[in-house]
Amino acid sequence: MLPSVREQLRAFVDERDWSQFHSPENLAKSIVIEAAELLECFQWTEPHDLDRVKEELADVVTYCHLLAARLEVDLDNIVLDKLEVTRAKYPVEKARGRSEKYDRLSD
Amino acid sequence: MLPSVREQLRAFVDERDWSQFHSPENLAKSIVIEAAELLECFQWTEPHDLDRVKEELADVVTYCHLLAARLEVDLDNIVLDKLEVTRAKYPVEKARGRSEKYDRLSD
Amino acid sequence: MLPSVREQLRAFVDERDWSQFHSPENLAKSIVIEAAELLECFQWTEPHDLDRVKEELADVVTYCHLLAARLEVDLDNIVLDKLEVTRAKYPVEKARGRSEKYDRLSD
Amino acid sequence: MLPSVREQLRAFVDERDWSQFHSPENLAKSIVIEAAELLECFQWTEPHDLDRVKEELADVVTYCHLLAARLEVDLDNIVLDKLEVTRAKYPVEKARGRSEKYDRLSD
Repeated sequence: MLPSVREQLRAFVDERDWSQFHSPENLAKSIVIEAAELLECFQWTEPHDLDRVKEELADVVTYCHLLAARLEVDLDNIVLDKLEVTRAKYPVEKARGRSEKYDRLSD
Repeated sequence: MLPSVREQLRAFVDERDWSQFHSPENLAKSIVIEAAELLECFQWTEPHDLDRVKEELADVVTYCHLLAARLEVDLDNIVLDKLEVTRAKYPVEKARGRSEKYDRLSD
Repeated sequence: MLPSVREQLRAFVDERDWSQFHSPENLAKSIVIEAAELLECFQWTEPHDLDRVKEELADVVTYCHLLAARLEVDLDNIVLDKLEVTRAKYPVEKARGRSEKYDRLSD
Repeated sequence: MLPSVREQLRAFVDERDWSQFHSPENLAKSIVIEAAELLECFQWTEPHDLDRVKEELADVVTYCHLLAARLEVDLDNIVLDKLEVTRAKYPVEKARGRSEKYDRLSD
């Protein structure tokens, strides 16, 4: 995330004195609430409304940034760290073209 | 997000030939599934396990990036666009220190 | 729900002294966590595993019963009350064969 | 669930010709969407609005019933079957007064 975005989110929260509501638990609840609103765009699989999808996706990511800031972690770093773990769980030769969970991938 | 992170995510998916599974709908489902795993870290409100929280948050953000790539939108841009909308819904003078939804904020 | 099911759920919780964890908020978190595990059965839309679907659906409904018990409401009654509301929002002549939300149903 | 409730739900769906939208996958999505709306009642932990909680809980349970009907399973039966499994995972002597997941319960 661009530092300027991070800065604007922080200012938005500070001006409203909202960090008092932003416990890690409340932010985790907020992420799943917004993720479900995003899913609602695909509830009945008619073609999705791209503008609405973008807004809901933005809400999910905004709360992810607020949680990262609260926990003092860097989103880019934790994504890369997790990618390392996932690479090991899903080796290319086993996982190629398959959607099974790693513990169901046979040789 | 750093361009290098985006690049690594794309390579990870390509090597496994997984983009065939990554319809916008499937990615939206995946985001909410991972968001609920993140919430599970706070299910019974004992002190949370920070390492697990970081992994689950990374999963949410990873799928958000894959959806953004699929829709050809930029996450930073949509976060900023939505922030503009939210600022208008929650003017500082009305929203300061309050957690009500915008349609319940009285004067 | 059969009174005998309700009775067995209550006994299960009491024997383990778990009602201390069952605040309405914690139960609401648990419902969404289990609902996402149910959705995971359909994440990549390969044919679903019926046994797993049944287990996950049972988890969702179990927590719904625990929340209803906590709030001292009857699930059958609230379902019927809500059905009344939904009937009014989706009159047969407007909603027939259509999946739009009520506020997007045109005449 | 009372047979009369089941009957009313079926009639409600039939009159609107909505079973065409009610694939198991779409119903699973709907359950998590409604579960997140229920959680929204507890997003910022101010005292919850009981009427709203009842409506959202009713929505979750309604979709659970529709999914059970679609899969031709009985909700009471699957809840009892799962309770049997959970009893074995959480023996009283180990689980009493503790909220840890079964795989973290030490002796």
